[in-house]
Amino acid sequence: MSEIKENLVLVNGEIMPMEEAYIDVNDRGHNFGDGVFEIVPVYNGRAFALLPHMNNLFDSVIAMKIPGVYMIEELVEFHESLLAATGLENCEIYTQVTRGSAPYGLAYPEMSVPQLTMMAVPVDRDALAAKRAKGVNVITEVDERWAKCDVNTLNRLPEVLAKQKATVSRAFDALFVRDGKITESTEASFFIYKDGILWTHPENKYIHKNITRRLLVERLAKDMDLQIMERAFDKDFALKADEAFLCGPRCEFMPVTKIDRSFINEGKVGTLVPELQAAYEAFVARECPAK
Amino acid sequence: MSEIKENLVLVNGEIMPMEEAYIDVNDRGHNFGDGVFEIVPVYNGRAFALLPHMNNLFDSVIAMKIPGVYMIEELVEFHESLLAATGLENCEIYTQVTRGSAPYGLAYPEMSVPQLTMMAVPVDRDALAAKRAKGVNVITEVDERWAKCDVNTLNRLPEVLAKQKATVSRAFDALFVRDGKITESTEASFFIYKDGILWTHPENKYIHKNITRRLLVERLAKDMDLQIMERAFDKDFALKADEAFLCGPRCEFMPVTKIDRSFINEGKVGTLVPELQAAYEAFVARECPAK
Repeated sequence: MSEIKENLVLVNGEIMPMEEAYIDVNDRGHNFGDGVFEIVPVYNGRAFALLPHMNNLFDSVIAMKIPGVYMIEELVEFHESLLAATGLENCEIYTQVTRGSAPYGLAYPEMSVPQLTMMAVPVDRDALAAKRAKGVNVITEVDERWAKCDVNTLNRLPEVLAKQKATVSRAFDALFVRDGKITESTEASFFIYKDGILWTHPENKYIHKNITRRLLVERLAKDMDLQIMERAFDKDFALKADEAFLCGPRCEFMPVTKIDRSFINEGKVGTLVPELQAAYEAFVARECPAK
Repeated sequence: MSEIKENLVLVNGEIMPMEEAYIDVNDRGHNFGDGVFEIVPVYNGRAFALLPHMNNLFDSVIAMKIPGVYMIEELVEFHESLLAATGLENCEIYTQVTRGSAPYGLAYPEMSVPQLTMMAVPVDRDALAAKRAKGVNVITEVDERWAKCDVNTLNRLPEVLAKQKATVSRAFDALFVRDGKITESTEASFFIYKDGILWTHPENKYIHKNITRRLLVERLAKDMDLQIMERAFDKDFALKADEAFLCGPRCEFMPVTKIDRSFINEGKVGTLVPELQAAYEAFVARECPAK
């Protein structure tokens, strides 16, 4: 088995040690958060659902009118070479593309050379599995984000502040509440299961595009004969659910048993969310078999 | 007279050529826009209203809970040494403070070493004066920014996109409109003058703190015996004004004669805005005399 070198970063296609990788002081990502990102989970050394994730990334690049200098084949190759170089089998690959460097000013030049940065982020899936067995608590936070949440931009302070508040409160995550309705958490979609129906916020400009949500809606729910209602709901409705969960590329399917100190299903993990997690794991095992 | 070297940057207190200044790939400013900024205008080699601007910066640092590692005296000294090193007499000093580097993740470590970057931004005040003589046109844009506009954060994509739209439309700037009311432009406060009263959006979480606005409200308006009404208004109301203007550290007092192709005061620059600009220039001349 090869040595693990997680401390590597890929900058504009070239892999180097983290400490040799630097960003220009006038990079518009650094000055304005003028860029986009994507996170791809890796299982058994294979990037999961890489093409849908890269399509998401391209959607964000196009929405922000960042010049597209890489082809999808190159991004696939970069994921593979970064994984090969780090030797990591289980992690996440974080990718960000900024508009690149320009003289200081809000308006941007039509032509710029985007800056691509990719790195492997370690993930402790055993710790997540332990949380999954017991269920997690979340807090709520007023959703005062801007109205382009469907684009994965680097303007992430609202999520930073909410996640920090959750961490300080010893909660797993924070649910955003806009106009009284739960939209999503800082890094995942939120679902409840009630009377045999899965409820979640509709996909619009107030929530991120989430590949795991899409897998659930388009594939797993159909396989398991589950009805999905894409309609916004409030916290009181969620508290009366039979089960609740977060789903996203980082937490997979995580049972939520408590919101703001109030229990859902008396604080017990139900049966549906573990079934969804098992279905997800089976899907992942087919897509990313051990090498 | 010494040579002009505008291509210098101050990083964590040390002045160096721009091309030697680099940011860590894991700087939270680069990953999340997790930082704050301030812009100080410089006249005759002197930073204008430096202490109020630095108080603004500290307010933003505190609001984002970024550890404060610099004292105000140090920031004053950094401005002076950067100006001395560049030899610039008229410019702006852009300062940004990020939370610094940390392993990737939304939640931040309680302790981090903030990253300070400062640079001189050239400004063409003759070109601005020419625009001031004729008045400028602005466009409107839906204000879908987050609800912490009063903090000068690096999450500036809404302003980037709006300013870009203005630039492409050959407009000077874009006015944000929230719930039908004009809040401010991408970089300045917006005022109208009507029936002897100056109207502007009240200072709350939907507009930036702006030192030039404060100078007008607390000082110039009193000296000139002008009444100020801090109440939000819509575009139709603005179009019926006698005069309209933007005010901010970058544009100073800039007459607005057209909004979205409709004229204000038949497209003519009135008399009040030039008087305000003259009062501002007189104030600046006293504060920043030629050396």
